[in-house]
Amino acid sequence: MRSIDVAGLRVSNNSIEILDQQLIPAEERWLTVESPEQMVEYIKALKVRGAPIIALSAAVTLAQYSEHVFNTSATERDKIRRIKEAASLLKNARPTAVNLSHAMDAMMQVPDQKWQNGALWQLAIEICKEDASLCDRIAENGLALLPRSGRCLTICNTGRIATGGLGTALGIFYKAHELGMPVEVFACETRPLLQGGRLTAWELKKFGVPCTLLVDSAAGALMQSGKVDAVFIGADRIARNGDTANKIGSYSLAVLANHHGIPFYVVAPYTTVDPGCIDGSHIEIEQRHVNEVRGVQGSFGSVFWAPEDIAAYNPAFDVTPSSLITGIVLDTGYFDKVAIKAGKHLA
Amino acid sequence: MRSIDVAGLRVSNNSIEILDQQLIPAEERWLTVESPEQMVEYIKALKVRGAPIIALSAAVTLAQYSEHVFNTSATERDKIRRIKEAASLLKNARPTAVNLSHAMDAMMQVPDQKWQNGALWQLAIEICKEDASLCDRIAENGLALLPRSGRCLTICNTGRIATGGLGTALGIFYKAHELGMPVEVFACETRPLLQGGRLTAWELKKFGVPCTLLVDSAAGALMQSGKVDAVFIGADRIARNGDTANKIGSYSLAVLANHHGIPFYVVAPYTTVDPGCIDGSHIEIEQRHVNEVRGVQGSFGSVFWAPEDIAAYNPAFDVTPSSLITGIVLDTGYFDKVAIKAGKHLA
Repeated sequence: MRSIDVAGLRVSNNSIEILDQQLIPAEERWLTVESPEQMVEYIKALKVRGAPIIALSAAVTLAQYSEHVFNTSATERDKIRRIKEAASLLKNARPTAVNLSHAMDAMMQVPDQKWQNGALWQLAIEICKEDASLCDRIAENGLALLPRSGRCLTICNTGRIATGGLGTALGIFYKAHELGMPVEVFACETRPLLQGGRLTAWELKKFGVPCTLLVDSAAGALMQSGKVDAVFIGADRIARNGDTANKIGSYSLAVLANHHGIPFYVVAPYTTVDPGCIDGSHIEIEQRHVNEVRGVQGSFGSVFWAPEDIAAYNPAFDVTPSSLITGIVLDTGYFDKVAIKAGKHLA
Repeated sequence: MRSIDVAGLRVSNNSIEILDQQLIPAEERWLTVESPEQMVEYIKALKVRGAPIIALSAAVTLAQYSEHVFNTSATERDKIRRIKEAASLLKNARPTAVNLSHAMDAMMQVPDQKWQNGALWQLAIEICKEDASLCDRIAENGLALLPRSGRCLTICNTGRIATGGLGTALGIFYKAHELGMPVEVFACETRPLLQGGRLTAWELKKFGVPCTLLVDSAAGALMQSGKVDAVFIGADRIARNGDTANKIGSYSLAVLANHHGIPFYVVAPYTTVDPGCIDGSHIEIEQRHVNEVRGVQGSFGSVFWAPEDIAAYNPAFDVTPSSLITGIVLDTGYFDKVAIKAGKHLA
């Protein structure tokens, strides 16, 4: 069955649609995907964002394209050449997205004699299902860490629209909510790009999880007031020693959680762990454009409030040392400080 | 000499102008003040903001109005009644602004027989000069605390446009800069109302102090990178035990500074100390409107990015316990932890 119906991607037979994440929350518009070139455009325009969902969207697009190509009268050799070119095009749409690169490589490892018989579709659907079950396993491993009060703080968006399933950090909240456990999420708005204010606030609301939005700088006062019993964040890269790179602001939350004796958890799929990276000092941090700090820009509008010629400090990520991390939740299990020290999260 | 020429207020003879702070930094527009009613409008529209400068602007406006009234043919009794009404009108333009209330009370304590002879103008100018010298004394008391590198972090706007002089926390930077000492200021943008991004960034630039803007959540990463050697913030209210209420985000900065072993200073005039307030738990914190978190609104434009019906946690201030404060700089002196414990800041 070629059927996928998740928060950010719909597949039905040979038809593919992605949710335009640029318009969230003002509008839920689904965009039909007609070709690899069009998907590349969507990826570049951030209409589809979130490393896992990008990979899944590209995989089904390549499968769709291969079926189209095999329905043409081109020579066998030409067909295979065109499909390989499309795979390469998609793979390069976002060079830093490891999931995308892995997915395209996996698709191209299917022997080309089988491409005609739907093997690419089969694998693409499998990759989607696998991502959903990865999310499920992460959520199950994190469930026991949820405080009895259910009151958790998070940053950025690590949810359904970014993955083929429940998400990573948000997935734990969804799973708990499904099981009728109390959950109340405080979402940091996540300046400068506002993934918390735009996406997490919308997503949690849509799926019925109580959510309260706050400016990032209010997290300290919120913890001080005793309203937060755990912090769950996603991860962009986890080093061998457990140091974790994630959205700017995560490190501040870790220091604040530590000061207040609140557990601080990192939640990710095993693919985020990079055993080749010894510690956080080896993670390069991208400095982004001053305009992100001078104002806000998006489908909701564009305004600038700061002087034009101001300097800005605008790192995309920060690195939280493992000493401030209570534990790491992966699909492969939960790893506390002792387990991380023993390198068990690398297995 | 009826002459005041500071960053937010100009007085020349009987003419008064205020800087429209709502348009900063896009435009430096000066608004002529013609009447107490008009000044009340400017205050209510936040065209003039910052507790000290509001008080000064109201004082000169009342002086101007009294001169106008004494040039009319009204009865003596009527003149005095009209001036008293104007004082009351101005005093109530912003009921929470203690400085405004103090200034209007002081003006009205001048014996009314003297009003005709310019005594109100004299006092108004005196109040302005006194505020400037208050700023000078604060800056002088804080100067020794400036790290040799000059690299400091601040939040909100505590500068020239908010006062009749150099400002409070920013005043220390201006004074150091005047004296040729190295100064480099990192300014938190200060969500939700962006006083850092709009006003501090503009002001420091205008007066030649190197300034780098950052989103509030990047303060942790900045401290971690070793680029900050001291934090200086203003204060809205300082309790008897040194606990300090200030702009939301100040408490997070205090925790972060503490974690990194960076000194954290509170800078204010003596009038901010409230000996009747035992500790921070007695300071009421205003929760503000969800729309401030759903987006941004200002003369620069108005956009909303978060869902319409989202809940928000949006306190205007937070309270930093004195245990996290290295010392308090007042015009009356510098008070370290020991001095604060001994209540010396109350003298």
